[in-house]
Amino acid sequence: MDSLHDTCKWGTGTRWGDGPNDTGMSRLTLTDADKAARDWFKAEMEGLGCTVSVDTMGNMFAVRPGTHAGAPTAMGSHLDTQPTGGRYDGILGVHAAVEAMRVVVENGVTTRYPLAVVNWTNEEGARFPKSLHGSSVWAGTLPLAKALSLADVADSALIAGEELARIGYAGDVECSAAANPLGAHFELHIEQGPVLPENKQRIGVVAGGQGYKWYTVTIRGRDSHAGTTPFAYRADPMLLAARFLTRAHEIAKTHSGLVTTGIFHAHPGSINTIPHNVFFSLDFRHVDDAGVAAIDGGIKAMARELEAEGGRYKCAIEFEPLFDAPAVAFHPACREAIRTAAEGSISKQEVRDIISGAGHDSCATNLHCPTGMIFVPCKDGLSHNPEEYATPEDCVLGAQVLLDAALLYDQG
Amino acid sequence: MDSLHDTCKWGTGTRWGDGPNDTGMSRLTLTDADKAARDWFKAEMEGLGCTVSVDTMGNMFAVRPGTHAGAPTAMGSHLDTQPTGGRYDGILGVHAAVEAMRVVVENGVTTRYPLAVVNWTNEEGARFPKSLHGSSVWAGTLPLAKALSLADVADSALIAGEELARIGYAGDVECSAAANPLGAHFELHIEQGPVLPENKQRIGVVAGGQGYKWYTVTIRGRDSHAGTTPFAYRADPMLLAARFLTRAHEIAKTHSGLVTTGIFHAHPGSINTIPHNVFFSLDFRHVDDAGVAAIDGGIKAMARELEAEGGRYKCAIEFEPLFDAPAVAFHPACREAIRTAAEGSISKQEVRDIISGAGHDSCATNLHCPTGMIFVPCKDGLSHNPEEYATPEDCVLGAQVLLDAALLYDQG
Ligand SMILES: NC(=O)NCCC(=O)O
Ligand SMILES: NC(=O)NCCC(=O)O
Repeated sequence: MDSLHDTCKWGTGTRWGDGPNDTGMSRLTLTDADKAARDWFKAEMEGLGCTVSVDTMGNMFAVRPGTHAGAPTAMGSHLDTQPTGGRYDGILGVHAAVEAMRVVVENGVTTRYPLAVVNWTNEEGARFPKSLHGSSVWAGTLPLAKALSLADVADSALIAGEELARIGYAGDVECSAAANPLGAHFELHIEQGPVLPENKQRIGVVAGGQGYKWYTVTIRGRDSHAGTTPFAYRADPMLLAARFLTRAHEIAKTHSGLVTTGIFHAHPGSINTIPHNVFFSLDFRHVDDAGVAAIDGGIKAMARELEAEGGRYKCAIEFEPLFDAPAVAFHPACREAIRTAAEGSISKQEVRDIISGAGHDSCATNLHCPTGMIFVPCKDGLSHNPEEYATPEDCVLGAQVLLDAALLYDQG
Repeated sequence: MDSLHDTCKWGTGTRWGDGPNDTGMSRLTLTDADKAARDWFKAEMEGLGCTVSVDTMGNMFAVRPGTHAGAPTAMGSHLDTQPTGGRYDGILGVHAAVEAMRVVVENGVTTRYPLAVVNWTNEEGARFPKSLHGSSVWAGTLPLAKALSLADVADSALIAGEELARIGYAGDVECSAAANPLGAHFELHIEQGPVLPENKQRIGVVAGGQGYKWYTVTIRGRDSHAGTTPFAYRADPMLLAARFLTRAHEIAKTHSGLVTTGIFHAHPGSINTIPHNVFFSLDFRHVDDAGVAAIDGGIKAMARELEAEGGRYKCAIEFEPLFDAPAVAFHPACREAIRTAAEGSISKQEVRDIISGAGHDSCATNLHCPTGMIFVPCKDGLSHNPEEYATPEDCVLGAQVLLDAALLYDQG
């Protein structure tokens, strides 16, 4: 816990309380703060005798040999955060893995296969708009060139590949599961949702993850005067966006899914001018791929209806696909190792199978190696918020389960 | 027309056609482009033998003496534009007044009272969010200190007073109708709406102008994760904004008024985070003040309802008043002079009484001196758009009516 909180000096975010750790995090990927956290990770792992390599996406692999050669059993997560994020999302998973490695080294534990700690690049997708950015290239679902060419959502002059080189983490290891395989991947993460806290349970054995899709939606209208243009003469993309977002919410609700818009811009941005166009992000999710497809279809049909609705002047609605993560089912052997490990520390009643609402790097690794995830509760299920909080007891329990599950799997 | 188009090299905007003048304008107030247009205005008027003075708001007064001392009969408008504006809104009024003065000088016309051309500062309110910015200070409805302290809507580090000084137009004449009175104010402007073109009429004698109000609306929610936060656990200010804008539109429609949102921002601006807060501009209008008040009341009641609607977590909606322009009725003597002047050039059928949907500096001057406005049609009623267009014939006719009305009034 000390190392977790200490490293939060890099990218400290909003203060929300009086305590020394009562600040959120704003450690967007590939910024100077992210570089500082990476430097710490590298030094820490080398100090534990691990060999640290960096791939062409900046993913960092710290490896300790086992008695057998072969692909390492990895414990991984990410050190980047949301712009107004907290101290646990991703960070806990890396620090727990570092702590697990520390325990292994200090106790001279011998593993059959190499043991690794991985820090994946831009899991959040908050700065460059693909979540699981580094792990998706590793998994082969996103071409390297495309991944490196992504622009910062807040400043299109800043390109991912250039930022990666700037902070000195454009490595030379090929970023691919074939060239740099893992034997298994375990990840500890806060749940980020209400299920564990509401049920007063302490460990979630993650069965799988929701599917989700991201788009940028652009609505093109006609800029005209706010005071002189009667409603019947308007093609008002702001009003259409308002209707769109209201109806998208209804569509997602009907299908028991979720939809969210976090980014919204209007041009030219003048109080007394109806915008020329607006664009906004769209994130929708469902526990299964058919549900994601149904929401996708519903939203697009609704958009065609809204386009048709205009009077003399009409708006056009365009969808630019940004990211597509299918629903995931984790590997039975990993789930089994996690459940056994959990029940070794706490009662059966405090452990539950759970579905992840969020995407995780484990969703990408699962395509190439047995993968499992462990959830611990966070306060009120709140995440992507400076006040995100998990108790030290739950963090420590999670780290113990992570270590035990990885060792069980290695010996299994 | 040559001088109008030639000076559009300062602040040239979006190209929309192949012709030499087929570009819009982006001459935001107090920018370098605005300074260049002001420098031209000053040189031009001094070349015609006028004395040019500048007040503490940067309003420019070019005066030619009459046979009597006393407050000048002014012809005024503005040289600033919207960010994606056209070549006529404001610009036509100043150039027509310059041309009128040129005709007076070249023909050695003697007026009873001094004749003036005025260039008012920031009529648009597009950069610093008060329309009729300079003329409102002159009229005493906006305190000078407050006017000079306004921040740029796109960059809050840029302050109106500092920008005014930077371009060298913070003058020393007291900005007030008492210290620097006008005897009358005439303004030629494009209609910016569909009434004249749809009725194939060429001159509008403006009876008055709509009332309007501007607010910044802030909706505060709770930032949380897009994938893990069930709808019932959200305080989503983006969704509430969408409902707000949809309902505000219905409210304005019910009262036969207008409502527009041109600026919209969401924070922190991450695809997979429900925003912490959003803020947006609100511009609503009605031909009479009671209608403006009814829309105002309706929108605020609706906001209270939306706030109450949340579940476990609720959003808060705040209104920050930005600008308030009551409905206006212009002076009968000025309207009469304009009608007589118009009927001297074209048939009665081509002249109509009309209400202005937009605010104009004349709405401010009307509080202190007899004021009248002349509208000429613009294509499709389109304004605050790069393709805004008025025919040279209508521009010339408008300038003729402006000159004739001012001279009739001077002699009346
Ligand atoms: N765990 C997490 O917050 N991941 C970010 C990717 C997502 O949007 O689900
Ligand atoms: N004429 C004009 O566009 N004025 C700007 C002020 C307003 O928003 O009405």
